[in-house]
Amino acid sequence: MNILDVDLGNRSYPISIGTDLIDQPTLFSACEKATSIYIVTNTTVGPLYAQRLTKTLENFGKPVRTITLPDGESYKDWKNLQLIFDALLEQGADRQTMLIALGGGVIGDMTGFAAASFMRGVRFIQVPTTLLAQVDSSVGGKTGINHPLGKNMIGAFHQPVAVIADLNTLKTLPPRELSAGLAEVVKHGAIADPEFLDWIETNTAALLACDTEALAHAVLRSCEIKSAVVSADEKEGGVRATLNFGHTFGHAIEAGMGYGNWLHGEAVGCGMVMAADLSYRLQFISQAERDRLTQIIQAMNLPTRPPQFGSERYMELMQVDKKTEGGQIRYVVLEKMGQAQIKSVPDAQVLETLIATGAA
Amino acid sequence: MNILDVDLGNRSYPISIGTDLIDQPTLFSACEKATSIYIVTNTTVGPLYAQRLTKTLENFGKPVRTITLPDGESYKDWKNLQLIFDALLEQGADRQTMLIALGGGVIGDMTGFAAASFMRGVRFIQVPTTLLAQVDSSVGGKTGINHPLGKNMIGAFHQPVAVIADLNTLKTLPPRELSAGLAEVVKHGAIADPEFLDWIETNTAALLACDTEALAHAVLRSCEIKSAVVSADEKEGGVRATLNFGHTFGHAIEAGMGYGNWLHGEAVGCGMVMAADLSYRLQFISQAERDRLTQIIQAMNLPTRPPQFGSERYMELMQVDKKTEGGQIRYVVLEKMGQAQIKSVPDAQVLETLIATGAA
Repeated sequence: MNILDVDLGNRSYPISIGTDLIDQPTLFSACEKATSIYIVTNTTVGPLYAQRLTKTLENFGKPVRTITLPDGESYKDWKNLQLIFDALLEQGADRQTMLIALGGGVIGDMTGFAAASFMRGVRFIQVPTTLLAQVDSSVGGKTGINHPLGKNMIGAFHQPVAVIADLNTLKTLPPRELSAGLAEVVKHGAIADPEFLDWIETNTAALLACDTEALAHAVLRSCEIKSAVVSADEKEGGVRATLNFGHTFGHAIEAGMGYGNWLHGEAVGCGMVMAADLSYRLQFISQAERDRLTQIIQAMNLPTRPPQFGSERYMELMQVDKKTEGGQIRYVVLEKMGQAQIKSVPDAQVLETLIATGAA
Repeated sequence: MNILDVDLGNRSYPISIGTDLIDQPTLFSACEKATSIYIVTNTTVGPLYAQRLTKTLENFGKPVRTITLPDGESYKDWKNLQLIFDALLEQGADRQTMLIALGGGVIGDMTGFAAASFMRGVRFIQVPTTLLAQVDSSVGGKTGINHPLGKNMIGAFHQPVAVIADLNTLKTLPPRELSAGLAEVVKHGAIADPEFLDWIETNTAALLACDTEALAHAVLRSCEIKSAVVSADEKEGGVRATLNFGHTFGHAIEAGMGYGNWLHGEAVGCGMVMAADLSYRLQFISQAERDRLTQIIQAMNLPTRPPQFGSERYMELMQVDKKTEGGQIRYVVLEKMGQAQIKSVPDAQVLETLIATGAA
């Protein structure tokens, strides 16, 4: 097992990465001070792991209850968030209650936002069960829900008190979701670590085969990169925005297709192809580098051709991105492989990319 | 004009108290860095002041728009909060947008929570137009909405960047709302400053007559007391809970009657009568002190006799209070006049108070 610390002063917390972690009560020791414990999960993950996790948590001698939400990005809305609040209030939760997010990114984001808002803030633990959640969304404290006009538009920065990434939960993951998670792994290499990108390229087959050793390294290195960025810029005043590489285009794809039709990681994978093309057009990276990144993404069985909404619709969809300032869309581009920056780009060049990638 | 600083490190902000402040652009200088400005108000306050405030804010050369919500505590829910998000997203608001809460406590709490959650946090300014909001709810960063099972159950700590209390707006306040605000003024004297309580007792007639000089002192001293408590304990780990004097019983009255039937200040006034009785039964204050506080509250034209829900219903309603820990309700009681503490109390003594005050 590896333990990694996210350094955020008095909001610091450990990320544990290993196998069979959901059976180890010591990793959940933050529950000792809780008055009650609520596992928030969904209809897919709950039947697989909620009972085992409940047994682990019952060691603390506090009531352990489970709240089960429907599964999928299309349920990441206020109505389903309200189900968490309803259950907590009906069953007498209080400010010392601990929430446990057991599931993928949607469950983590919703549970985190529920924890941020319930009685103006209670503690929560992330138990990510998808690769995407383990390498990305469970780390860094971004929580939230979608609005019909934009993804993650309503939310809070609220750090978990622990992240427990049990690699065994990835064994039940459908291949499509594994690939979606690998998109964020590739992203970490692309924006921050060219050697890690080389390693990913070499180990594509092992990763797709769900090899535990390969996944352990991918999760650890991703968490290291992400937590270093988050420690430097918790509230996204600057460098943290580079973690959004591929996300400006990606969010437009997700919103345009209707949430849940493309997986988030699929949209980000395709968004990175578009952002790499834009980086090439800005003369930051070479055509060969753009093509290499595209091939790495394709090798992960991710879509590399965006849906053809047309340029007007893309610009409209990207306009609501959270990085937009005063109507100006800001893009994360690669200065070179392994290094990213955030930039306003003339519409003409974005249009070239939309046409070149088949989006318009 | 008086300016008072709320000392919260890099989240510190000024409270300005005086007349005709909504016409003074310099007080809103935090808007200089905003990309757009949204006034959030209600159907009662908007027609009175939104146009004047818009004119003041247009000095910053940014688009100024108004979002108007229905007026009343019963609208302090997710559905109406969503109207703010809808308007912001439809009109292209971004992370540099400034929200301005123009109204009473409901508008302030909702706008503050919208600011806390929109794109995970934007800045906002409080322009409280009721006495209750000027002396209490606009200061300290508590924001939120109600849940059918409890008041302010969903929310965030999110400090405004400025509070601008224009005393002239109190001139249009219905007498019932003026009295409701005076309940919180009395509270500040009762929990923190016996001399201020003497002053209130002496100046009851001037306060009820809406005398500007008397109100200026009441608002200033209340803000001083509240901001000192908030500076010492922003997130209510300890002493801040004493500001909840009268609120445990008060929230039960509000919830039991249905939100909006009793004004918050009315419920708090009556709740203080009950909490004073409990303090007397715990042998902290004398019967004469209890009766004096009851008389001060009564002199403010506030109800002093609680609705007769019966003891079982009161206990059930108080159970969801945010101060409750592990099923144990915690009460704010007066150790002596001008000093409060938070305490678990045996049910038998609470029952005595419920019977003695006519609640059961």
